[in-house]
Amino acid sequence: MSVVLKATGSGSVRFSEVDSLGIVWHGHYLLYLEEGRKIFGKKYNFDYLDIFNSGYLAPIVHVECNYKNPLSYGDEWSIETTYTDTPAAKLIFQYEITNPQTKKIVLTASTTQVFLRSDRQIELNIPGFFSEWKKKQKIISE
Amino acid sequence: MSVVLKATGSGSVRFSEVDSLGIVWHGHYLLYLEEGRKIFGKKYNFDYLDIFNSGYLAPIVHVECNYKNPLSYGDEWSIETTYTDTPAAKLIFQYEITNPQTKKIVLTASTTQVFLRSDRQIELNIPGFFSEWKKKQKIISE
Amino acid sequence: MSVVLKATGSGSVRFSEVDSLGIVWHGHYLLYLEEGRKIFGKKYNFDYLDIFNSGYLAPIVHVECNYKNPLSYGDEWSIETTYTDTPAAKLIFQYEITNPQTKKIVLTASTTQVFLRSDRQIELNIPGFFSEWKKKQKIISE
Amino acid sequence: MSVVLKATGSGSVRFSEVDSLGIVWHGHYLLYLEEGRKIFGKKYNFDYLDIFNSGYLAPIVHVECNYKNPLSYGDEWSIETTYTDTPAAKLIFQYEITNPQTKKIVLTASTTQVFLRSDRQIELNIPGFFSEWKKKQKIISE
Repeated sequence: MSVVLKATGSGSVRFSEVDSLGIVWHGHYLLYLEEGRKIFGKKYNFDYLDIFNSGYLAPIVHVECNYKNPLSYGDEWSIETTYTDTPAAKLIFQYEITNPQTKKIVLTASTTQVFLRSDRQIELNIPGFFSEWKKKQKIISE
Repeated sequence: MSVVLKATGSGSVRFSEVDSLGIVWHGHYLLYLEEGRKIFGKKYNFDYLDIFNSGYLAPIVHVECNYKNPLSYGDEWSIETTYTDTPAAKLIFQYEITNPQTKKIVLTASTTQVFLRSDRQIELNIPGFFSEWKKKQKIISE
Repeated sequence: MSVVLKATGSGSVRFSEVDSLGIVWHGHYLLYLEEGRKIFGKKYNFDYLDIFNSGYLAPIVHVECNYKNPLSYGDEWSIETTYTDTPAAKLIFQYEITNPQTKKIVLTASTTQVFLRSDRQIELNIPGFFSEWKKKQKIISE
Repeated sequence: MSVVLKATGSGSVRFSEVDSLGIVWHGHYLLYLEEGRKIFGKKYNFDYLDIFNSGYLAPIVHVECNYKNPLSYGDEWSIETTYTDTPAAKLIFQYEITNPQTKKIVLTASTTQVFLRSDRQIELNIPGFFSEWKKKQKIISE
């Protein structure tokens, strides 16, 4: 059974994120997903900077978004970021953004990241720091 | 056999689109997809404003991006936008962004849009203006 | 002596806001100024939506930014937004963004907004709702 | 008499740049100014990358924008970027954005950049590559 870690956070819609239809421009939700990863990283010590300081980059290679109900200016949003472990040298997150006032789901999404070494070549094995992290999170045994 | 319409265009990377790794931030590629739809719309008279002036909105309900090779500051990009007809009241586009200098594929993507009426309810039937457009494009017969 | 109202808030730098030099791209600070106005609006009941619901728009006609010390990814920022009253039909805000960790000033800025009526013509007299607001804030006497 | 160099270019408004009032969000004009500098840099061999490859950074320390008439979705824009020489180790540009259809001025702006050495300390003397460039442009004599 695969291990699952979750983190939740929230934010509010910026005026500049709203398009001419009065709703958040679809591309700006990727900013919220990034907030979701940041919140996850803070909770589990696995932020972009933790990865970077370990000598790796973790670029996004796949994004998928399903838009359910739009957010408008003045709206708050909540995000739940879910990490599901995989044996591959990949980072897969799933996201659910909700509007806490209406309780409606705004968006579901997923992202996949791979690891690049400092020479910007893809790392196909699990990096050492990532194994260590998995052990600390009891995802894999010591 | 489904009808396919294609439009191509190009642009160049803006400084503000490049992240701290020196490559275009993954979310900004959605700007290029939007350029791709705009280029398509100009070629086939099916722009955002044409839809809007017909009394409809066409929000994006699904986006999927596969990142292959990143673009950097100073790079040019080419986009090919492909419309594949579907009998549903949907607009489905596929995109291929390439780096014209390296000939490498940068990104492949797809978007799905639905139609909303002026009361912001979803239109499940093909809107009249869309049928007219399909006829003009010889996608469906008169 | 002119009346001065202040509001303070804070935020943190998003990954997407950082440019290829590893610092916040200069244009993104305008997002933080907008946050500053939003925080001010919440504290003094004078948000964009309050203005809009009173039948006016308040577009920005002038922005000036002085960049002192850049923010990087992972940094927090604090903003102090200052409203200084003027007899003209204008909204003038001044801003100071600081890095709470280093105590350094990041940016000082000012914005000027005018009022447009619903016909998008400029309103040269103080709008009624704005006078009411000034009275409530003891900026002008009843 | 100070030497003045000019470059002109153009672009079109992106959907994502338009706010809920149907006009370009005021912060996005800084993107167009950046295009203006890029166009200038191409014409006079003085791009961001030319500066960077000479071992310097040229961060913006001051921006000032005067908004005259807004742009909307679908609008084209023209920009004229003007370099006015100064004996200080600074880069000062002035900009005029116009709407080629209405002939109206959209925005006037100015930016000031300073030079940072690779240790990110400010360079108070004119960098060598900048003197060379000035000579080539006949701004200063050989």
